[in-house]
Amino acid sequence: MSTPSSLASGPEGPHALRPLLDTVLDALSEGARVRGGPLPSGGPEAVAVRLRDAIGDVLPDQGDPDALHDIVRALAEGAADPSDPFCAAHLHCPPLALATAADLAASALNPSLDSWDQAPGASELEGLVTEALAAEVFGTAASRSTPPPKAPAAPNATAAPSAPSALITTGGTESNQLALLLAREAHGADVRLVHGANAHHSLPRAAWLLGLPEPVVVPAPAGALDPAALGEALTSCAAQRLRRGSAQPGALVVAATAGTTDAGLIDPLPEIAALCAAHGARLHVDAAYGGALLFSDRYRDRLTGLDAADTVTLDLHKLGWQPVAAGLLAVRDPHDLAVLHHRADYLNAEDDTEAGLPDLLGRSLRTSRRPDVLKIAVTLKALGRTGLGRLVEQVCDHAREFAALVHDHPGFELYAPPTISTVLFRPAHTGDAAVAAVRRRLLTEGRAVLGRARIDGRLWLKATLLNPHTRPDDLAALLKLVEGNTPR
Amino acid sequence: MSTPSSLASGPEGPHALRPLLDTVLDALSEGARVRGGPLPSGGPEAVAVRLRDAIGDVLPDQGDPDALHDIVRALAEGAADPSDPFCAAHLHCPPLALATAADLAASALNPSLDSWDQAPGASELEGLVTEALAAEVFGTAASRSTPPPKAPAAPNATAAPSAPSALITTGGTESNQLALLLAREAHGADVRLVHGANAHHSLPRAAWLLGLPEPVVVPAPAGALDPAALGEALTSCAAQRLRRGSAQPGALVVAATAGTTDAGLIDPLPEIAALCAAHGARLHVDAAYGGALLFSDRYRDRLTGLDAADTVTLDLHKLGWQPVAAGLLAVRDPHDLAVLHHRADYLNAEDDTEAGLPDLLGRSLRTSRRPDVLKIAVTLKALGRTGLGRLVEQVCDHAREFAALVHDHPGFELYAPPTISTVLFRPAHTGDAAVAAVRRRLLTEGRAVLGRARIDGRLWLKATLLNPHTRPDDLAALLKLVEGNTPR
Repeated sequence: MSTPSSLASGPEGPHALRPLLDTVLDALSEGARVRGGPLPSGGPEAVAVRLRDAIGDVLPDQGDPDALHDIVRALAEGAADPSDPFCAAHLHCPPLALATAADLAASALNPSLDSWDQAPGASELEGLVTEALAAEVFGTAASRSTPPPKAPAAPNATAAPSAPSALITTGGTESNQLALLLAREAHGADVRLVHGANAHHSLPRAAWLLGLPEPVVVPAPAGALDPAALGEALTSCAAQRLRRGSAQPGALVVAATAGTTDAGLIDPLPEIAALCAAHGARLHVDAAYGGALLFSDRYRDRLTGLDAADTVTLDLHKLGWQPVAAGLLAVRDPHDLAVLHHRADYLNAEDDTEAGLPDLLGRSLRTSRRPDVLKIAVTLKALGRTGLGRLVEQVCDHAREFAALVHDHPGFELYAPPTISTVLFRPAHTGDAAVAAVRRRLLTEGRAVLGRARIDGRLWLKATLLNPHTRPDDLAALLKLVEGNTPR
Repeated sequence: MSTPSSLASGPEGPHALRPLLDTVLDALSEGARVRGGPLPSGGPEAVAVRLRDAIGDVLPDQGDPDALHDIVRALAEGAADPSDPFCAAHLHCPPLALATAADLAASALNPSLDSWDQAPGASELEGLVTEALAAEVFGTAASRSTPPPKAPAAPNATAAPSAPSALITTGGTESNQLALLLAREAHGADVRLVHGANAHHSLPRAAWLLGLPEPVVVPAPAGALDPAALGEALTSCAAQRLRRGSAQPGALVVAATAGTTDAGLIDPLPEIAALCAAHGARLHVDAAYGGALLFSDRYRDRLTGLDAADTVTLDLHKLGWQPVAAGLLAVRDPHDLAVLHHRADYLNAEDDTEAGLPDLLGRSLRTSRRPDVLKIAVTLKALGRTGLGRLVEQVCDHAREFAALVHDHPGFELYAPPTISTVLFRPAHTGDAAVAAVRRRLLTEGRAVLGRARIDGRLWLKATLLNPHTRPDDLAALLKLVEGNTPR
């Protein structure tokens, strides 16, 4: 039994939720059936009109008993479904049913990770999972290959004080912001960001947000950061600063990328790390996309050099099959996090902390905070490193298969063999306008969601393959669809 | 049928989810039964040990088929359950089952609100709901009391360009950050924040984050901002700046609070708005807690003056029964939002925008973004203004009942009659150490979650009543529990 004011937790919570979850599942099925493809057809205005008609007044005076069904159905009808093999534009993954089901428990229990007395268990779970993921990135004293069977993970309290750590974020963007904030607090507000033109847009945006100087952008015409160009930029920054009369060359933070948004490329991390060491620059690696290669025995070595970074962005709602949000910032030296310490008497009064209540406020810039760690924890444990690695390898294999189809097709041009699971391609003998037009036509007709990327001065179609269940037939059909809809 | 790699959306999604949701509901019930109270007993270390033992290795090499059940059960066993009447410390509400069920659909479909082609329907829904909530705060040309029956809400495209707007955030903290960012971009990086000592800690933290000058803190010994003290501070800021030789007095942004975290007080908004107008200061109101009084005919007039603000923080995961996150920043002049405009070729290329694809990047500082609007939309429509107003009135009534019990009890002292749903009280004839101790004892024994607040130089126990289903008996029993556990 459920009334509009029934609560999700407490002894009656599961009983109240059960019929409502049935309503949601039915509405999801209906909406998907009506949509009938990877996204709704008709383009933005038609989709908006249908949604508005289905929903009506969003804040009526009197309640509407069909609201849950009608709104979920409308949302499903209006969704771009990332589990459709033809929905392959962005780092927008189809979430695992397991992770999604776990996320329901986060909503129902509603722990908030800003104080222990709102999240006694969730705060401990977050500590365990972030420690384990930081260890994946940076390693630990204990060898990963010989875990004591069935032993519990190391408790926070007894972990070496210098063990790497990680914070949970709303995604790569917040992780990149935090990485720059840590750099600012370590080196002062004149610390300068140096990033490739291939870096994620959130990095210069974070510099703006934090009031840092205008970043130095290193050209990356081929889509990855070129160590020679980076070296010149670092040398030139130091020289400029000294010419201006500074006694010191000024702090720099270099941002490299492991898995670019456009082409899925990995910057040459060992060379970049060596340059940073030589120039005394801090190193941040945005591995929002590529970080999950760590789970795969076949691909892990593409991330060699990652452990030399000071901070690393991970994002398991990309290559990790989590619903948004599932970001992390891994931090090699946990002392860097001390600058986030923050006191609010109602959440972490000094006498409470002294009496042993854990102080959680320094784990985020947010205050109320949903336990996004829950779905991540369930996924890591349910699949294990082997299961996750297999999913990573499946989507990388799909990219290779799709690239081979493109390569062998006389009507298409392939940008390059894929590094992770992104394939850039374009119809041969056409201009950029035709590339943009075929993508928009497929979008408007509700037939496929493809991305776009400008590299080397030309516009490419982008297929970001993140669905482990895509079949070879789907890939061939997708290419055929593009072929048949390219304006000539 | 569900395997560890089954996906949540697509035609098979609902079938894969159904058995997993049963597992989650069962695990929630079991965990709550084992917990047997508002929070787990034994204190932080004991809770942590039980959780670690239940979970074991968080990243095993091979997957564990019981992971979903075991981890959800452990989390439920280790939760502070906000739907327990004795869990009343924080602005940590018990979520509605309806909102929680809707949130499942957000996780399953996984729309991401950074580009139209990841969220065709969700982006339109977000536009409708934010417009409606901004209109609740600031009013619109159309009278709220005579909506055209059954007419669809005004589409974004045809809304007056100066209609108030709102952004969805992760909570009051992000809303406050954004409000200060808008002030910085409108007035320059030397804009100075002036806030009461009663303001939320996220406001000075946001000033630090954004590189603004040290804020001016106006004393608020009685828990609310005193207009006379604010007037003096504004006059003194201007004088200081002019003495330092500035041609201009420098921009100020005043932050007032409608629903303080400590006492649930509402600053005198009309007087503060008049002072801001007189001094040419920008006004931000943090109504994270109190904003939902707008839904109640009985309480709406406590927010008189709110519509004079430039920006208003709302947060429906406080007085709004949403799972975290459900924050908003309402903005009176939507042109203020233009500074958030941001271009990333893969998400909002110029030719796509010209061709009519909506540009979503300027709606947030995040990039990937979960549709938290869905649960809000379902709640607004399922309950209507009347239903939400009734819930608001229920918890405010509980606070009055609890305050009366305290007032009539010779063993307790009441701070003041409640303004919203927060009651500050303390055992009579004891010191602050005893107040802190009884709270920690109840926490450690798993018997009650009460908050604390320091006002007027004394420490108080805080009951934040947010559960509409709490009964008078529960309130009496809670008071009795405190009485019986206060050290003498």
